Amino acid sequence: MKITIVKVGGAVVENPAQLAVLLEGFRNIEGAKILVHGGGRRATKVAAELGIESHMVGGRRITDAQMLEVVTMVYGGLVNKNIVARLQSLGIDAIGLTGADMDVIRSHKRPLKDGVDFGFVGDVDCVNANRLKTLVDAGMTPVLAPLTHDGNGTMLNTNADTIASATARALARLYDVTLVYCFEKPGVLANPDDDLSVITTIRRDDFMRLTADGTISGGMLPKIENALDAVEAGVKKVVITKADSLDHGGTTIL
Amino acid sequence: MKITIVKVGGAVVENPAQLAVLLEGFRNIEGAKILVHGGGRRATKVAAELGIESHMVGGRRITDAQMLEVVTMVYGGLVNKNIVARLQSLGIDAIGLTGADMDVIRSHKRPLKDGVDFGFVGDVDCVNANRLKTLVDAGMTPVLAPLTHDGNGTMLNTNADTIASATARALARLYDVTLVYCFEKPGVLANPDDDLSVITTIRRDDFMRLTADGTISGGMLPKIENALDAVEAGVKKVVITKADSLDHGGTTIL
Repeated sequence: MKITIVKVGGAVVENPAQLAVLLEGFRNIEGAKILVHGGGRRATKVAAELGIESHMVGGRRITDAQMLEVVTMVYGGLVNKNIVARLQSLGIDAIGLTGADMDVIRSHKRPLKDGVDFGFVGDVDCVNANRLKTLVDAGMTPVLAPLTHDGNGTMLNTNADTIASATARALARLYDVTLVYCFEKPGVLANPDDDLSVITTIRRDDFMRLTADGTISGGMLPKIENALDAVEAGVKKVVITKADSLDHGGTTIL
Repeated sequence: MKITIVKVGGAVVENPAQLAVLLEGFRNIEGAKILVHGGGRRATKVAAELGIESHMVGGRRITDAQMLEVVTMVYGGLVNKNIVARLQSLGIDAIGLTGADMDVIRSHKRPLKDGVDFGFVGDVDCVNANRLKTLVDAGMTPVLAPLTHDGNGTMLNTNADTIASATARALARLYDVTLVYCFEKPGVLANPDDDLSVITTIRRDDFMRLTADGTISGGMLPKIENALDAVEAGVKKVVITKADSLDHGGTTIL
């Protein structure tokens, strides 16, 4: 059986017009599906309004106790429930979940890394694939917020890309998984200035060649590396595409 | 089959020590159970920190668009997910839900009442009892936030007492339902100054007598009236007790 996991970032989720287009596209995906969302910009905004400063290290948020409250509110409440209500209005039987709900994703607090204390950030230990399958088999569409829990009563902040990839890997033993990352560009571009230059397929050997000749560089490198890892861990394919084009195009990583 | 629905208000939920005692007591309730929580004080506090004023009419919150965002964050995210994570740590397989999740509780925006526009407040139309039963039969414990949805993509703010009572009535055709309201006193008191004067049982005829002689008055009146209505609508019994004594005592309304 097939399942599609779509990860969408905060920029799309927080823009009502873009979100509407994304959710329409998501609705049109046939078969079982799961949506994983971010919400970082909104969290930063709410934190600022509450007088809480956001600190980032290497693009990752430092999550102290106050910031944990903010992300729990924004990701688990505001963003998640708005998406769920909208999907319900589109006839999708959505159910919003954090990792704590049904114990779906358990993590541990990240230990100090190079002397950096990320605070209440969770590194995923386990995705309960059977639990997600129970919901999906009952016709439901899980909507996962980027929050996990440690099993000892504490919520933890977990990157949405990580949630999507860990969920895809865990489900790979039960389904043919397609993992879709929504991206600001229509896919991986051969020429960064030409949106029509989408590379349609990338395999490990293509990746070697494209990195060697400099076509793929910078932030794209870890994205594709992670996608290839996911494929090698059993995920059927990873697609990198634009949020408004879920049903066509993009770059497929095999 | 029996099920216990416990409703607990914001005052308990927002006090870590009281919440811990409540959750211990809740864990010890045998059989299927559902927790319904409030969170109004915290919402008022977060709103104030965000520079949003809270307006109440007759004890009910006016929910404009900004306040809807706050209650969605606070009830659906902060309060709900903390309770879920704590219950998980106690070995209870909790799942946090708003009315939008699995379309569990649908409502409509309250029309103008006596010229008062309550804003994004939802009056319950329908509780999907079968959906809750599916979760409960699978060994899960739903934790309901006081939020519903209108089916057209909008979340609505709904009083937690109402959620509890509507859920109890809907489940009454599937279960023997005990509905427990946590209260700041150990029950309905014959003498308001004596916590030991708990009236153990109230039936409709007792209620008539106790209101006639002035023993029951003020805010207690609508509470017991609603409880008696619930019993007459099929709920097995309603218990009014203190949050730290879920497993014993209180006033039983039959």
